[in-house]
Amino acid sequence: MLESVAVKPIGVVHNSVKEPRMGGWESIESTIVVQDRWASALDGLERFSHIFVIYWMHLVSEQLRATMTHVHPRGDPQIPLQGVFATRSPVRPNPIGLRTVALLERRGNVLRVRGLDAIDGTPVLDLKPYLFYYDGVAESTVPDWAQRPAEGRTPLPPGKEPGQRS
Amino acid sequence: MLESVAVKPIGVVHNSVKEPRMGGWESIESTIVVQDRWASALDGLERFSHIFVIYWMHLVSEQLRATMTHVHPRGDPQIPLQGVFATRSPVRPNPIGLRTVALLERRGNVLRVRGLDAIDGTPVLDLKPYLFYYDGVAESTVPDWAQRPAEGRTPLPPGKEPGQRS
Repeated sequence: MLESVAVKPIGVVHNSVKEPRMGGWESIESTIVVQDRWASALDGLERFSHIFVIYWMHLVSEQLRATMTHVHPRGDPQIPLQGVFATRSPVRPNPIGLRTVALLERRGNVLRVRGLDAIDGTPVLDLKPYLFYYDGVAESTVPDWAQRPAEGRTPLPPGKEPGQRS
Repeated sequence: MLESVAVKPIGVVHNSVKEPRMGGWESIESTIVVQDRWASALDGLERFSHIFVIYWMHLVSEQLRATMTHVHPRGDPQIPLQGVFATRSPVRPNPIGLRTVALLERRGNVLRVRGLDAIDGTPVLDLKPYLFYYDGVAESTVPDWAQRPAEGRTPLPPGKEPGQRS
């Protein structure tokens, strides 16, 4: 029997996006306002170009996430149903969001980032530096449906075509 | 005021590592046993070569994580103190672990993975497919102290020297 854990948000996202949406986050700038008590725990984070933001997608209904096991990725009915863990759908048992973002600035308890795919008011659970030797996987492969970013995202740069698993 | 969220683990890690340790996880094989009720939510995950495992470092004491704001990275007193959010230290306000792992096999509700840096018995909160176009950042840079993996990890392959931010 696995017991629930209580997670206390350490900050909150502020940006111009007030409603959930599928793509088009790349150029969005957000601020992450960290609680005063944790401001000093950011010391040194400003020396990393990219960070992970782990957040809580608070608008996903409890009922939906407790019952839904499959989704059409990207809400596209032409893509066959996949288990929610095989997708980045917000609807999943624990609606934890994860995104690698560019860290533009830190000022005290406030971070300014670009590319975070979280709406205004989203609680933040953790922040981590991006370390390419743990976090980057050049040889990763994905199934056909996941070969390209969702609509509204910027295209891949040349020479960055995804791998494909047969 | 940010309210706590209740996160219910969706599975548990099993492997040969019974005590926390700093490095040497690359070759460790683990199984992740997902709760039966979520077994079908894994459908399609087996088509990805790499996945994120988001887990809960349950051995970190509440007192420590509620009070400690700075650590010496890798427990090395020669590295200047950094804010915990600037490190991958298990001691952080919410001891959420994140690791990219190779997915070797899925059988029903059981995943077999390589490279997970979590000890036997660790609760798992979420699983996500690794999508290089969101998750990989070729141009990321890190400060001096973080240029190389922690002791016990495999060296970088040739041509994969980390960037450095001045």
